[in-house]
Amino acid sequence: MSETRNVSYSFLGPTGTFTEAALAQVVEAHGKPWRAVNNVGEAFDDVVSGRSVAAMIAIENSVDGGVSATQDALASVPGLRIIGEYLVPVNFVLVARPGTVLADVKTVNAHPVAYAQCRRWLESNLPRHGHVPASSNVAAAAALSESALADAAIAPPGIEKHHDVVVLARSIGDNPNAVTRFVLVSRTTALPPRTGADKTSLIVELPEDRSGALLEMLEQFATRGVNLSLIQSRPIGDAMGRYRFVIDADGHIHDERVADALLGLRRFSPQVMFLGSYPRADKQPIEFTSRYDDEVFSGARAWLSGLLG
Amino acid sequence: MSETRNVSYSFLGPTGTFTEAALAQVVEAHGKPWRAVNNVGEAFDDVVSGRSVAAMIAIENSVDGGVSATQDALASVPGLRIIGEYLVPVNFVLVARPGTVLADVKTVNAHPVAYAQCRRWLESNLPRHGHVPASSNVAAAAALSESALADAAIAPPGIEKHHDVVVLARSIGDNPNAVTRFVLVSRTTALPPRTGADKTSLIVELPEDRSGALLEMLEQFATRGVNLSLIQSRPIGDAMGRYRFVIDADGHIHDERVADALLGLRRFSPQVMFLGSYPRADKQPIEFTSRYDDEVFSGARAWLSGLLG
Amino acid sequence: MSETRNVSYSFLGPTGTFTEAALAQVVEAHGKPWRAVNNVGEAFDDVVSGRSVAAMIAIENSVDGGVSATQDALASVPGLRIIGEYLVPVNFVLVARPGTVLADVKTVNAHPVAYAQCRRWLESNLPRHGHVPASSNVAAAAALSESALADAAIAPPGIEKHHDVVVLARSIGDNPNAVTRFVLVSRTTALPPRTGADKTSLIVELPEDRSGALLEMLEQFATRGVNLSLIQSRPIGDAMGRYRFVIDADGHIHDERVADALLGLRRFSPQVMFLGSYPRADKQPIEFTSRYDDEVFSGARAWLSGLLG
Amino acid sequence: MSETRNVSYSFLGPTGTFTEAALAQVVEAHGKPWRAVNNVGEAFDDVVSGRSVAAMIAIENSVDGGVSATQDALASVPGLRIIGEYLVPVNFVLVARPGTVLADVKTVNAHPVAYAQCRRWLESNLPRHGHVPASSNVAAAAALSESALADAAIAPPGIEKHHDVVVLARSIGDNPNAVTRFVLVSRTTALPPRTGADKTSLIVELPEDRSGALLEMLEQFATRGVNLSLIQSRPIGDAMGRYRFVIDADGHIHDERVADALLGLRRFSPQVMFLGSYPRADKQPIEFTSRYDDEVFSGARAWLSGLLG
Repeated sequence: MSETRNVSYSFLGPTGTFTEAALAQVVEAHGKPWRAVNNVGEAFDDVVSGRSVAAMIAIENSVDGGVSATQDALASVPGLRIIGEYLVPVNFVLVARPGTVLADVKTVNAHPVAYAQCRRWLESNLPRHGHVPASSNVAAAAALSESALADAAIAPPGIEKHHDVVVLARSIGDNPNAVTRFVLVSRTTALPPRTGADKTSLIVELPEDRSGALLEMLEQFATRGVNLSLIQSRPIGDAMGRYRFVIDADGHIHDERVADALLGLRRFSPQVMFLGSYPRADKQPIEFTSRYDDEVFSGARAWLSGLLG
Repeated sequence: MSETRNVSYSFLGPTGTFTEAALAQVVEAHGKPWRAVNNVGEAFDDVVSGRSVAAMIAIENSVDGGVSATQDALASVPGLRIIGEYLVPVNFVLVARPGTVLADVKTVNAHPVAYAQCRRWLESNLPRHGHVPASSNVAAAAALSESALADAAIAPPGIEKHHDVVVLARSIGDNPNAVTRFVLVSRTTALPPRTGADKTSLIVELPEDRSGALLEMLEQFATRGVNLSLIQSRPIGDAMGRYRFVIDADGHIHDERVADALLGLRRFSPQVMFLGSYPRADKQPIEFTSRYDDEVFSGARAWLSGLLG
Repeated sequence: MSETRNVSYSFLGPTGTFTEAALAQVVEAHGKPWRAVNNVGEAFDDVVSGRSVAAMIAIENSVDGGVSATQDALASVPGLRIIGEYLVPVNFVLVARPGTVLADVKTVNAHPVAYAQCRRWLESNLPRHGHVPASSNVAAAAALSESALADAAIAPPGIEKHHDVVVLARSIGDNPNAVTRFVLVSRTTALPPRTGADKTSLIVELPEDRSGALLEMLEQFATRGVNLSLIQSRPIGDAMGRYRFVIDADGHIHDERVADALLGLRRFSPQVMFLGSYPRADKQPIEFTSRYDDEVFSGARAWLSGLLG
Repeated sequence: MSETRNVSYSFLGPTGTFTEAALAQVVEAHGKPWRAVNNVGEAFDDVVSGRSVAAMIAIENSVDGGVSATQDALASVPGLRIIGEYLVPVNFVLVARPGTVLADVKTVNAHPVAYAQCRRWLESNLPRHGHVPASSNVAAAAALSESALADAAIAPPGIEKHHDVVVLARSIGDNPNAVTRFVLVSRTTALPPRTGADKTSLIVELPEDRSGALLEMLEQFATRGVNLSLIQSRPIGDAMGRYRFVIDADGHIHDERVADALLGLRRFSPQVMFLGSYPRADKQPIEFTSRYDDEVFSGARAWLSGLLG
């Protein structure tokens, strides 16, 4: 059992993906071994088995893999905790073999999702190009030196450091503000400290399929002034019409209003998975009205204790 | 300061009222001095000042006094607790001076509310009678021996034990199932034990006057499976459009779901008056679905503690 | 059948009561015969039978009679409509036989409710007086000239015009802002025009007794931005735990949001009694956010029609 | 403008994908030209421009493309309507060049998502295999005859009809019940007739980002007994913290309860996109309690009309 095993970090490879860029934001991971894996299942296996201390995975808006797959995996693998959130600008460059100029490009190798996100630029600048689909953004660039399949490739910025390619154009994505959201997943149950700009992730199964059950679940948050930044229904898969909900709530489990919402949620449904409380990547402080301050909760408890004698 | 002072019980007099009949149901009051008072304010004064250990007052459907007055008094006098609830059948007899028979009766002396409740019987049996209003049911009977103002009086059953009258007819009320609800009010803060058939009385001020505030208040109960048997809005009186709510909730403050609803309520509005948890007069066990069992609440707390580490 | 019969107006008598003062505010009633009745049941009988065109009854905060009785009567007598609301300041004077001065007063004759509302003044100004209960405020004053039972009486202002008494003190009520609310009840189904400062009165039975049914009823109002100025639960009386609710909602049935709330309410419970839409006595315009404007409702309907093709 | 143009159907290609299998379920598309496109944007362009009469796209659980991309495209391309829903079992076969047997397989070419879904089978049956990622399930099979990159490929059933391959194993997916959900998108505004087993798809923007806005939106459904089978938040993208919701509601816009919920929704938010009402692929009749029957809605309207006179 080598020491490197349980200090390594996993990410969805190969080298050069946006997921790797997200992992580069994790200070604790610097100087540790990184493992490039093929899919979310492998990433979670690394964490659960102890091969890695944590894994970086895309959770929203990804070009590197399916978000639904991530959410379903989080729901089915017990013992995982999200300990951090990271944003990576989704930015693309057009690269080619050294010596190529833009006018030479007839075919473009690109992952279909990346291709779709650069279409406007391509239609303006290479109106007669053909598209060769690639299995990943990085694979497209790597293939340039191996085959003549395509003249150019769409790839993440910085790809020229890893492969023998030249950059023909930068920022070719159609939406200059696009970001992908990643989370760092671990086995630890230690909670990151409360920062005031936190997020709490949950997966909740509705106890029954009836109009009103979803509403009742959301009331657990609304009646404590807890806002949701994400809610997504996913079929549970064991029977028609049964759903689980992936939820990101504003605030930390150490906030009284969040803890109380969790209590209500757990009473509502025994199937609540707490995925973690962690700092938001955007560092935006959570706003809530003063009627949901910690003091209001502790004040009410003191009042009740007085009544109970 | 005699010892009898603080063991006496107050009730809305005079002797013979339904309120006295309610007090007769209180085992602890037997053998203690009883004080007949003129109105709810005096009754509460007796309790607050320590002149009486408790006072019996009508809270619903009363012919002996105004329910609104009782509710407003409970809201404005601090330090009171309801410790018991009592039901008295509202039943009337027609009484007259000894020697009178029904055919002799031309005028009937009666409190207007009692008179209204016996009107069908009177129209059938004394179609040509006249009505002389009285200030109370008992006063009407008492006046028979003092003046010739009326030939008969409407009075509570048993009146013939206190006054020199004969009963001409029994059960003359139009609704044979009518009951009046009374509560026993005290200064004690000791809670009557939980019986499983309990009631919790509250007065809550809405924090603002907006559509939705009332709904938000009621959600505190509904999201914990707590049913309400009474809700009544009362103008607060300090400004237009400000309301307080008189509420009877099913269950005891020692029930987890009720205690948690009180926490939510107190966070919602700092103006919550807890008037007491006490056994229901009708001894009907509270029904609620198993998802609001005490164990569900304590289970959720244990789960949350595990997460907080 | 004389013509005067169906143009008369009924009120809770006798002459001089606050109810008569409320009726005096009705311009249409001037110059028509007025009928003084003994109780709410008689007042409604007059209207239903056609003896009177309308009846004035106390609906809140009354010293002249029970509000619960009024509400229950409205719920059980079909075919009634409220067509107006009136406020009367609850103001009291102390009156006595001519020649009496304040220092002479040893006993005060007063209806118990009126007495309670003047207690602070009496304790300051007549600390050693005794109380003789009366059956109505007017009866107390009338009795002064008939018997020596009391030296003074509590009565409504203006009583000196009807009875041979002198006023010893004015404005002796403890709450100088107290008002009683009255409604004018008729058989007509013509709706008073919308003024922008209207009220809609309803009686609704909950379809079942379960936690949440009340909430569901109130959502019909809240989801249309309709505020409630009164809500009161009343036992239906046919079985334990069955309730009806007396409701005053802000706005007129000709307001789209109110009409839509009534639709929702009627779908929720088949037992909805519409008691009328009428101008508020306080003439305060109803405030609501622009998202509940009539235009929003008609705009949504036009949008839906477009979809339905 | 050739006639074939506006009768063709688009699908996410190449030939052999699950999306093509979904299109094969559309009876109207038989005998019409089919266009294989590269991504959702192209599919919608075909429909909007009139090149195709309709396009088949994956909407949930897809291995052929991103669901988020589909949802965002539906929200940003006006004038589209969903006219049908189709389910395709997600089933995989392992194929190889003719002459190959399972024991020969050392490397497997597969789309990463398909690979992940067959991993348990591969680990049991080919424990020492290597994975070569492909850009699509069909491309992996097609590549077998063109290069020696891999010995076998994961592909959809039926692939052997289009390519010169033999099937080494069937049903190698880890979840035998996996299905992908597709929708057929068109420009028509004619509504498919109501079948009693329908679905209504919507995209709704919350008017503000505040705790409670989501709840208020869902109440529009719950207070009309309309259940949701899908709800998904998507960042709008114009500013932090602004969300739109992708919703599938049970029932047809011709159901009174659904039409009324749409009215409420539109009043709640002016940004409601109606994506269509259409038969559910699973043909499961919608269940709802009788209190939301069409008759209840028309009965309430008749009652209100009676009041309005």
